[in-house]
Amino acid sequence: MLIRGPEDEILKKEQAFRIIRSTINEKGREALYDLTGLAGGFPIKKEDKRLLETYIGPAIYEEKLKRLAVEHLGGEEVIAFNRTTAGILATIIALTKPGGKIIHYLPESPSHPSVPESAKVRGAEYLEFDNIKEFYTPPGTKLIFITGATMDHKIIEIEEFKRIISLSKKARIPTVVDDASGARLRTIIYKQPKAIELGADLAITSTDKLMNGPRGGILAGKARLVKRIKSVAYKFGLEAQPPLIAAMVRALEEFEPTRLIKAIKLRDEVYEKLKRSFKGFQKTPTGVMIRPEEIKKEIEKRNVKTRLSPQETSYLWAMLLLQEHGIITIPAAGMPGASPTLRLDLSAPDAQRLKPDQITRILEETFQKLLDTIIEPEKAKKILGG
Amino acid sequence: MLIRGPEDEILKKEQAFRIIRSTINEKGREALYDLTGLAGGFPIKKEDKRLLETYIGPAIYEEKLKRLAVEHLGGEEVIAFNRTTAGILATIIALTKPGGKIIHYLPESPSHPSVPESAKVRGAEYLEFDNIKEFYTPPGTKLIFITGATMDHKIIEIEEFKRIISLSKKARIPTVVDDASGARLRTIIYKQPKAIELGADLAITSTDKLMNGPRGGILAGKARLVKRIKSVAYKFGLEAQPPLIAAMVRALEEFEPTRLIKAIKLRDEVYEKLKRSFKGFQKTPTGVMIRPEEIKKEIEKRNVKTRLSPQETSYLWAMLLLQEHGIITIPAAGMPGASPTLRLDLSAPDAQRLKPDQITRILEETFQKLLDTIIEPEKAKKILGG
Repeated sequence: MLIRGPEDEILKKEQAFRIIRSTINEKGREALYDLTGLAGGFPIKKEDKRLLETYIGPAIYEEKLKRLAVEHLGGEEVIAFNRTTAGILATIIALTKPGGKIIHYLPESPSHPSVPESAKVRGAEYLEFDNIKEFYTPPGTKLIFITGATMDHKIIEIEEFKRIISLSKKARIPTVVDDASGARLRTIIYKQPKAIELGADLAITSTDKLMNGPRGGILAGKARLVKRIKSVAYKFGLEAQPPLIAAMVRALEEFEPTRLIKAIKLRDEVYEKLKRSFKGFQKTPTGVMIRPEEIKKEIEKRNVKTRLSPQETSYLWAMLLLQEHGIITIPAAGMPGASPTLRLDLSAPDAQRLKPDQITRILEETFQKLLDTIIEPEKAKKILGG
Repeated sequence: MLIRGPEDEILKKEQAFRIIRSTINEKGREALYDLTGLAGGFPIKKEDKRLLETYIGPAIYEEKLKRLAVEHLGGEEVIAFNRTTAGILATIIALTKPGGKIIHYLPESPSHPSVPESAKVRGAEYLEFDNIKEFYTPPGTKLIFITGATMDHKIIEIEEFKRIISLSKKARIPTVVDDASGARLRTIIYKQPKAIELGADLAITSTDKLMNGPRGGILAGKARLVKRIKSVAYKFGLEAQPPLIAAMVRALEEFEPTRLIKAIKLRDEVYEKLKRSFKGFQKTPTGVMIRPEEIKKEIEKRNVKTRLSPQETSYLWAMLLLQEHGIITIPAAGMPGASPTLRLDLSAPDAQRLKPDQITRILEETFQKLLDTIIEPEKAKKILGG
C-alpha cells in the first residue's frame, strides 16, 4: 500500500505542488494545463486592480455583480460568497434553527459534504433522498435543498425538479438549489430552465465550474431571504471580498455558452480516439474520465500484475500526467478525500491549447509509463511523494 | 430623526458608494483618500495575476505565506482566512463543542461580535471579562480568547496578558489571541512581544489593519491545533482563496514598521494643528478621532442649535468629507452598525498623499459646511441619501 490515508494523500499533493512550482519557475505558466475543471480563473483587468479595496471595490462592482448574476441565475437579490460551501453554511444558519429538519433531494447520493456538514454544525436534522418515489417532507422541515447536478455531473430530471418544487410550495417551505455546476450544465447542455424560473426560492452556483471565474459562489433569489442570508454572511465573514467579486463580474461578462458547446465537440473527438487504445474511458458532460477500477482493468488486460489498489494506479497516472506533460488533474493535486477518478475537463481554458491527437497521445504514452512504474513499487512511491 | 435604523444607514452607505463611483469615473482613484484604516489593499504584482488559480496559486504562495506569517506572528503552522471573523468561527467550531464554555478577556468590553456570535452558533456558553480581578476559568472552559487591541485600539496590559496565559496553562486550556490590529499595534508601537512569544497557543491577525493587505485573516500557532482548524475551514469554505493569499504574501513582504512610526509623527502634527480650532479631537494610536458627543459640543459652542443626534452630526460630517474632498471614513461608508466615531487613520496609504495643513484645513472647512447644513434638515437628509 503506497497511499494508506490522508497523510499520504497530503504528501502526494505536496509533491504535485512541487512539480507545479518548478514547472512555473523553469518553463512558465504555458507549460501547465489545468484540466481539473476547477482552475478558478482570476480574469480581472488592469483597470480593476487598483479598485479592489474594502470600501471602493463594492461601490464599483456590487452593482454590476447584481445585474449580471440576476441575468445568469434569475431572482431579485444576490450575494457573492468566498465559496459555494460558505454560502450553503450561511443559508442553513439563516433559515433553520437547531432541531429543525433539512431535506435534500439529489440525482444520486451521496451529497456534497457541505449540506450535511452545515446541517450538523447547526444542530439541524438532515435527510437525503435520491429516489423521487421515497421523497417526502416530514413535519418540522424548514428548508429543502435540491442539487441540480452532482459532483459527477449527474443531472436532475426536470419532472423530479418540478415535483419537489410543487411539494415545497404546498408545504410553504423555502427551496434552495445547489446548482454549483448545474446553473450552466443543466441550462446550456440539457436545455433545462434556470432553477429560479422553475420556482426555486434561491439558487447558488460556483463561479469556477464550467466558467472561467474564481473559486467562489453566487447566491440569488427572493430579496427577503437573501437579506437574511446576507446578514449571516457578514456576521461570520463568509462573503466574497472585492478581488473575488471583481473577478466574478469579469467572468460573468465574458461567459460564453458556445465554449461549452465547443468543449462537447472536443470531448467527442477525444473520446472516439481514446477508444482505439482504451475501453475504460467514459464521457462526462464536458470531458472524459476513467474510474480507478477501469484503470486496473486496462492494466490487467495488458497482462501486467500489480499489488497497487485501483485508487493508487489512478493517483500514479495523474502524477505522471503532471510530471511528464504538465497536466493538472484532481487525483494529483486535489485535497485529501477528493475523488480518485481521473477526469479531464475539456471546457477548461487550458484545454483550448491542446489538440485531440495530442491529448490521446499523452494519455497513451503516460499509460505505458504507468505500466513500467507499477512493477517498481519504490519508483512508484517516489512519484507519489512518499 | 434623519437616521432611524439600519435601513437609513444602508441608504447613507449607498449614497457614499454613489459618490465613490462618480468620483472614480470623473476624477480617478487619486481623487479619493481612504482613511478608514481598513482600505484592504490588493498589492499583487503583474507576475502574480496569472498564477492566482485554485491549484496553481497555493503551490506558489502557500509556502511563502507560511514563512512570512511565522516571521510576523510566530508559531509552527499557519492558515489564511477570508476574514478574521471566519477564522474565529473556524477556531470555535474546531476547538469547542456545544455546551462547552468560551472565556474572553479584553482590555475593554464589548467584544467584537465575531467571538460571542460564533460561540452562540456553536451552542457554547460565552463569558466576557475586562477586569483582570474578576477573571476566572469556570469548570468546562474549553477555549480562552484574549483580545490584544480592541476596535478602538485600546491595548491589553502586558501583565494582564501574562496572567491569563499562566492561568490557562495551569488549567491546560488552549488560548487564542485575537490580535486583529494588535499584532502590529502592540508590538511596534507598544513594544510588547508577539502573542505567541508570550505563550499563546494561537494568534490571528487582520491583514488590512495597520498594513496594506487585503481584508482577511492569518492564524498561526501550534501545528496540532492549526491542523484541526484547517480541516474545519476547508469543510465550511472559510479559507482565503489564492488571490487573497497572494496579496497577503505581498503585503507581508512589503510591510514596513517604520511607516507606523511615521504615521504617529503625522498624527501628532495633525493633532496639534486641530487643537487650534477644535477641543473634541483625540489621538488614536495611528490617527485622530472625534466622538459624536464631542461633535455635538463643538456645534453648541458655536451657538448653532440643531435637533440632529450626535450620531447624525457625525454621519453628516463624514458624508461632507467624502462629497467635498473624497475622504472615505467609516461613518460614511461603513456597514450598518459600524462605529459612528469620525476617525482618520493616518497610517493609511492614501494619508501619505495629504499634508498636515491640508488635513486640518479640510476638517475646518467641512465643519463650517456642517454648521450650514444642520440648520437645513431637508438638505442634510439629502446628503445622507434619504
